[in-house]
Amino acid sequence: METRKVAVMQKLLKANDAVADELRRQLREKDIFFVNLMSSPGSGKTTLVEETVRRLGKRIKVIEGDIQTTLDAERLQKLGIQAFQINTGPFGGDCHLEAAWVRTAVDELGLDGMDFLFVENIGNLVCPAEFDVGAHLNVLLLSVTEGEDKPLKYPLAFQVSPLCLVTKTDFLPLKNFSLNKLRENIKKVNPACAVIEVSAHSGAGMDSWITILKNRPNFQG
Amino acid sequence: METRKVAVMQKLLKANDAVADELRRQLREKDIFFVNLMSSPGSGKTTLVEETVRRLGKRIKVIEGDIQTTLDAERLQKLGIQAFQINTGPFGGDCHLEAAWVRTAVDELGLDGMDFLFVENIGNLVCPAEFDVGAHLNVLLLSVTEGEDKPLKYPLAFQVSPLCLVTKTDFLPLKNFSLNKLRENIKKVNPACAVIEVSAHSGAGMDSWITILKNRPNFQG
Repeated sequence: METRKVAVMQKLLKANDAVADELRRQLREKDIFFVNLMSSPGSGKTTLVEETVRRLGKRIKVIEGDIQTTLDAERLQKLGIQAFQINTGPFGGDCHLEAAWVRTAVDELGLDGMDFLFVENIGNLVCPAEFDVGAHLNVLLLSVTEGEDKPLKYPLAFQVSPLCLVTKTDFLPLKNFSLNKLRENIKKVNPACAVIEVSAHSGAGMDSWITILKNRPNFQG
Repeated sequence: METRKVAVMQKLLKANDAVADELRRQLREKDIFFVNLMSSPGSGKTTLVEETVRRLGKRIKVIEGDIQTTLDAERLQKLGIQAFQINTGPFGGDCHLEAAWVRTAVDELGLDGMDFLFVENIGNLVCPAEFDVGAHLNVLLLSVTEGEDKPLKYPLAFQVSPLCLVTKTDFLPLKNFSLNKLRENIKKVNPACAVIEVSAHSGAGMDSWITILKNRPNFQG
């Protein structure tokens, strides 16, 4: 029974990876850098994208993953950018995005007029890490209010992400949170993970984030 | 394909529900009140349980669900209570607990010497809501740093929970967060959900929480 389950899962993941690879290749050909943002609910993905658009300009399109509601897409459309909402609610409330759904959303959005594509994955530190959506860069967001132990508890999410943004650092004065401990725990599960601290609220660290985006790590495969 | 997937899922859920119902019945017979805590990663489940033990005494056993690590069980064992860790990592990193795993953990812990059983489900607002673990009361924790929109985005988690604890209210002075808006959003998806605000840090609201536990809502089925 368990073996059967694993075999079916491997087949699904293999099909997903083929779609993801093709999407990644096609976007690179069009010179579009694709970033997949993953985090717990409420770690600040949409706020980060809003601040990124303010600093990097409007040649950004965004695909929003949520079980329900179009709240986040509406927030971004107010900035004058194109945002496409994927709601997984009608399909069993799926807890992650798969490459085929992102593919469909990209086809709807079109490839013109963008230098960057962002996906905000479903707020969840578990399942999204298992599915390659075709991004050139996976970025893990973790807010300081979530605690330093999360890399140890959700290692896969950190292992598939070359970059971790520690968000909401404006809360640090009020919170018993050790950035050193968090960095140590990230290194334990993914020694190669780059860590930067940001606050969309105060603007701290946003320059480093924008510089990384402009440098397009992993873009050439 | 989609129909097939739904049919298999329904069969799995039906088997899960039978185990859950039997566990619920057995614990009621032994006069043990079983509470299932669900939340995003880092919303404060373990801290709440620690403070609950300090106020309610040691006749509490806890089952900890995590993908990896025994960190939370170790935190609780320091208080002198029995805690059993379920790690789903070896089983594909499952993102929720199922009734059969809780059943096994209860058998390991034994039914003697406890008035309350707590399960800390995997930190995730999506999948745990789909699986009845046999609790008499599902409690949803949401920290104020996660934002007021979460009930609309993750409605099922709020719909299966008769009680929502709004945690980390000590952050409110620093956070642009409207408790009224959150209460409105919870009412939209679950008008029957009771909402109380707590801070394990300052102790605010903890008396109400302990009173609810002593009243054992839904215990008589």
